[in-house]
Amino acid sequence: MKKIILLTDLFLLFFFCTCVQISFAQAEHPRLILTAGDVNLIKEGLGKYPLFDLSVNQAKDKIETALKNPIDVPIPKDAGGYTHEKHKKNYNEMYLAGVLYSVTKDERYAKFIRDMLMKYADLYPTLKNHPMAAGESVGRLFWQTLNETVWLVHTSQAYDCIYEYLSQKERDKIEKSVLRPMAKFFTEEHAPEFNRIHNHGTWTVTAVGMLGYALHDKDLVEKALYGTKKDGNGGFLKQLDLLFSPDGYYTEGAYYIRYAILPFVLFAQAIENNQPELRIFEYRNQILKKAFYSAMQLTYTDGRFIPFNDALKDMRFTANEMVTALDITYRQYGADHTLLSIAKEQNAVLLNGAGLAVARDLTTFPNPPMFEWKSVELTDGANGDEGAVGILRSGPVSDQTLALLKYPAQGMGHGHFDRLNFIYYNQGRELLQDYGSVRFINIEPKFGGRYMKENNTWAKQTISHNTITVDERSQFEGKLSIAEKNPGERHFFSTSDPNLQVMSGKASNTYPGVQMQRTIAVVKDQKFSEPVVIDIFRVTSDQQHQYDLPFYYMGQFIHTNLKYNGFDKEQKPFGEANGYQYLWKEAEGNADGSAQFTWLNGQRYYSITTSADSTTKVFFTRIGASDPEYNLRREPAVILRTNARSHVYASFLEPHGYFEPVAERSDGATGIVNEVNVVSSTDEATIVEIKGKDSLCWTIMINNGPALDTKNHEVSVNGKIYKWTGNFSIQKH
Amino acid sequence: MKKIILLTDLFLLFFFCTCVQISFAQAEHPRLILTAGDVNLIKEGLGKYPLFDLSVNQAKDKIETALKNPIDVPIPKDAGGYTHEKHKKNYNEMYLAGVLYSVTKDERYAKFIRDMLMKYADLYPTLKNHPMAAGESVGRLFWQTLNETVWLVHTSQAYDCIYEYLSQKERDKIEKSVLRPMAKFFTEEHAPEFNRIHNHGTWTVTAVGMLGYALHDKDLVEKALYGTKKDGNGGFLKQLDLLFSPDGYYTEGAYYIRYAILPFVLFAQAIENNQPELRIFEYRNQILKKAFYSAMQLTYTDGRFIPFNDALKDMRFTANEMVTALDITYRQYGADHTLLSIAKEQNAVLLNGAGLAVARDLTTFPNPPMFEWKSVELTDGANGDEGAVGILRSGPVSDQTLALLKYPAQGMGHGHFDRLNFIYYNQGRELLQDYGSVRFINIEPKFGGRYMKENNTWAKQTISHNTITVDERSQFEGKLSIAEKNPGERHFFSTSDPNLQVMSGKASNTYPGVQMQRTIAVVKDQKFSEPVVIDIFRVTSDQQHQYDLPFYYMGQFIHTNLKYNGFDKEQKPFGEANGYQYLWKEAEGNADGSAQFTWLNGQRYYSITTSADSTTKVFFTRIGASDPEYNLRREPAVILRTNARSHVYASFLEPHGYFEPVAERSDGATGIVNEVNVVSSTDEATIVEIKGKDSLCWTIMINNGPALDTKNHEVSVNGKIYKWTGNFSIQKH
Repeated sequence: MKKIILLTDLFLLFFFCTCVQISFAQAEHPRLILTAGDVNLIKEGLGKYPLFDLSVNQAKDKIETALKNPIDVPIPKDAGGYTHEKHKKNYNEMYLAGVLYSVTKDERYAKFIRDMLMKYADLYPTLKNHPMAAGESVGRLFWQTLNETVWLVHTSQAYDCIYEYLSQKERDKIEKSVLRPMAKFFTEEHAPEFNRIHNHGTWTVTAVGMLGYALHDKDLVEKALYGTKKDGNGGFLKQLDLLFSPDGYYTEGAYYIRYAILPFVLFAQAIENNQPELRIFEYRNQILKKAFYSAMQLTYTDGRFIPFNDALKDMRFTANEMVTALDITYRQYGADHTLLSIAKEQNAVLLNGAGLAVARDLTTFPNPPMFEWKSVELTDGANGDEGAVGILRSGPVSDQTLALLKYPAQGMGHGHFDRLNFIYYNQGRELLQDYGSVRFINIEPKFGGRYMKENNTWAKQTISHNTITVDERSQFEGKLSIAEKNPGERHFFSTSDPNLQVMSGKASNTYPGVQMQRTIAVVKDQKFSEPVVIDIFRVTSDQQHQYDLPFYYMGQFIHTNLKYNGFDKEQKPFGEANGYQYLWKEAEGNADGSAQFTWLNGQRYYSITTSADSTTKVFFTRIGASDPEYNLRREPAVILRTNARSHVYASFLEPHGYFEPVAERSDGATGIVNEVNVVSSTDEATIVEIKGKDSLCWTIMINNGPALDTKNHEVSVNGKIYKWTGNFSIQKH
Repeated sequence: MKKIILLTDLFLLFFFCTCVQISFAQAEHPRLILTAGDVNLIKEGLGKYPLFDLSVNQAKDKIETALKNPIDVPIPKDAGGYTHEKHKKNYNEMYLAGVLYSVTKDERYAKFIRDMLMKYADLYPTLKNHPMAAGESVGRLFWQTLNETVWLVHTSQAYDCIYEYLSQKERDKIEKSVLRPMAKFFTEEHAPEFNRIHNHGTWTVTAVGMLGYALHDKDLVEKALYGTKKDGNGGFLKQLDLLFSPDGYYTEGAYYIRYAILPFVLFAQAIENNQPELRIFEYRNQILKKAFYSAMQLTYTDGRFIPFNDALKDMRFTANEMVTALDITYRQYGADHTLLSIAKEQNAVLLNGAGLAVARDLTTFPNPPMFEWKSVELTDGANGDEGAVGILRSGPVSDQTLALLKYPAQGMGHGHFDRLNFIYYNQGRELLQDYGSVRFINIEPKFGGRYMKENNTWAKQTISHNTITVDERSQFEGKLSIAEKNPGERHFFSTSDPNLQVMSGKASNTYPGVQMQRTIAVVKDQKFSEPVVIDIFRVTSDQQHQYDLPFYYMGQFIHTNLKYNGFDKEQKPFGEANGYQYLWKEAEGNADGSAQFTWLNGQRYYSITTSADSTTKVFFTRIGASDPEYNLRREPAVILRTNARSHVYASFLEPHGYFEPVAERSDGATGIVNEVNVVSSTDEATIVEIKGKDSLCWTIMINNGPALDTKNHEVSVNGKIYKWTGNFSIQKH
């Protein structure tokens, strides 16, 4: 681990040297996310901006319904059932009622919060550890502290909104019985989690920090900013330093940034409203802006987050957390109108001045420009030197090709052992999939809604991904401690030519003595109706290994040129461990020349043609073995297997033809390319030849040495000279 | 088979007695679907009605593109590849060019048709049987005559449009080389098919009849109307008599009426335009109107046709055939404005006066009332006495509950052996599915796009449906000849109470000595958030049998109360024949009291609770065994098995709770009902008790004797008296 000079260090230097006291800019309430100034703006704006009114009215509907029912603050019982959901509902209702009270001064809302808080003040002191608690972060109201911090983030805001409504006696009871004990619980009993550089840490410091501002408690705020010891080794600033790369990439990945971004923007907003002199939104070259935009770039055009690492595949940018982050980003960073197109799909805004600004501008500009999804390389690591996530995009929002190559760091505990994983989208949908996580979130009968054991034994294992598994074992022996020390490596990334975008990553130490390099190019060429993908996966070793490369295709098997035997009368697992035990071996075949496989999804065919010879085995598998409880989706893969020291899997992925089920029309079920050959692969270069109908012949040349755009290469293979400049070249004959 | 007095007989009587000659109402061209009168209306209307303009412009775009490319009339080769699609494209282009020429008088369009027809005139005389031909209906341009008749239906219209543009010499060549030989091919070599009471017959007579009108050839028209012998034993009128039930139900089912309706409405329109004195749209109490509306009632609210019998599951009412049928129905039968809501979704109209009327009225009424999907019983058989398809619906279009019980006739060669099959929709989707057919239509690598062998060996077999299979054999020994003699039987159907809709059907002779009766009720009750379904399946025999009842649920397995063993390390087929060979046996369990199974689909949970005891076995299966070529979808079922003489499977199907993946919220993963018991079942009545949370207790009483709404029943079981009136009653305690 390198020693990094962090901005926190400079901040603290400033803080301690000048002995500047934290000063609270305003003494009035509310003062956290919604301010007294916001309230005035909202009062003026009500009835003018439909989207804001919609969100206010939805809040009113919810709270009016809540007001009609008795308040229930149940004794915590489950991890994803009634009591879990009820406490979540309660904090949401308190938060909304707080906003509504601030705006309307209707005392029914304030009374609702007060009465509920009184019940929490009665309940909380009686609670021990939650009965469903598991692991280290044992909560009281919830099974894990994570949910409990979210409770406090919301409740602090509600409390802030009715602070002046409450009598001193009421404040005393609520603060003494629940708010301060909970803050103490977080800062003392859970000090390690509080100081941890992790999204749970962010939630915890945010909860405590926001409570600190609400209570005018400098001690809590300082702990939240600088860690329990106030030395800068923990706390919010350190998290801003370490949890994002300079590009704003959040190391846990797309699904988790969606969740993690909420406390970041909320606490930042609270800091801005209370200590504007900290200029928190400017911190680290506007790292929070980069965090939001990189989160958006990690969605596909259908709004879903790309599901690598632990991820629920249905998560979209319409999630509440992204609404909040978008609105705050919009107001704070210069009103980027392309964000309004996303806000329109979100169809909701935050109930503060930021949300008002978005709704107001959407009223003025009802047809904003579309958000721009771009080809981006998002570096990982606090210093941006721990690999990256490469994303190439081509085509319109309505039918975009996306290829993702994963060569970042491990992504902490929610990371998967999937260096050089490849994910592919087209036609508005995922076509070579990442399985995501094994979790039925908040579905009580499925392990209380928590991560299931198969998340570790299947979803994190290498074989569940579109990357090479060596010798039927997972990368880094499936050990987090090793994986965290060996981030992926950037080789090159180039999008300067929109017709030839290419990225290349490397992975070392995934397996002892094995080096891996994968290069993915997205190519637009008039011979093909859609962008095509070239995928060259080079693996080298001086020992003999078994290399398995799966493609988890989504859709209907149409055709293969392989001769194969179907295990259609008796089916057994593909292996015994490291995820292999979850695959049924449906069929096994041998290649005879290039292996080709075609499937159908939606209205288009897809073919993968891979360099292969008679020693290449091909398996058709399906997830679902060793899973009597049906925790896994029964989805297919085609898996290439070779035994070799060094090997190159060169594949050509081609969308083609059409199928229109309502018109019952189809054509082009066969693609153009029918042959892929590896001409040569050395430490200097890999050369691949692609052939197809109508005399199509492309030569692909890849620089395997140190990346350099300007270098002239000349390689001789069997007397034939190959010349090109730079890292990647296609010669079309 | 009963002797039926058919309207054709009366027609023919009239025809022969009075010796009325067929007189052609008009001598001008065009005169088939588009008339000279239509052309004038269209010229006036152009630019005024956006939907009509859209369809015209789409036609223009297609034809302008076609005009830029050389005309290709290839030698027929494949059954679902380039030449197949090209000939389809050709007839469509000729048809559209004909319409455009009529409206614009732009001679480029007429020339395009003429040139193409000249090429067909060169090609056609050289053709023998199509190389991919299979079965009886061997075509020349296409692998089956069916496509060839469709070619002629379109080409006749194109020819009619440019009739006056062509020189006599050109007409002579086209008529002599292709049009008349093709008509001769249909009326002579394919006379059995021409006279067959079947959708292929309808296409054939329509093709010949329309050509007859175009050529002013009375002989062809008379054959088309009355059969090749002109004796009324074949031909269009006989088909109108026999292919529809008095309710307009077409015996092949939903998917095929969508296809079959096109020649019916087209030929009817041509007849109306040429022989209005036949009053064809009034024929048989407006049978064509009933046909169209019953086709619409066989769609779900998402626009898909309910996929029983041979059916492709993606087929929707937006299909071109339904556009034509809707427009003609709209104009002919009094401009039902609810049809405009469907036309809006179709987003296309027919290019004649009928399409113009729809587009015009949509311009006047841009927000028409929604089409009304209703609970309907569609009787089958020409006399309406061969059972029925019962459909119960409840709830809004946006989230409608639909239960279908199938007790009609066999539905000819495309019928499945699935008497008393049950299909269920909710939440805008199919949840207990019918597999549909095994066919990748027009996908060349999949058996040339034709029905695959698994259509017979799997899709038609009883076990692939949600109905009882006895002794692992299909109904009627899987023989069409037996099945056709034994239609399903109506027991009762009642929708008078919207909170308690119920239908009951019977099936005899499906298996020797076995009687079946299934009763399905859709019940709205305030204790349940959604309508629930009660399903009582009674089977009686004096011999011991094995009764298997599958539920092909769609979605994610969540929970069962069964103890079961998963075959998770080795999987074998569920059986050896009659469709069982295609099911993997994934798990096997035993009930202990009521068997309960819960799955998740979309944002809702579904539970089936079934009367069972320790002798009831339960299997979890998945389609895909014995299918090394991946012709089948890998989809699950839960299958109940009992060995008994007589037995009642009483099941309660309950949607419950919610799952919101973006908000990550869920509740109500467990339903209310937890116990279903059969109290008694005799030839007089079946009595079932349903119990659940909060002391829910319902007694269901079903009349098994002759159906009678008014009959008072009194049944004593173990000293307890059950009293009710009519066929079905629920007593809620």
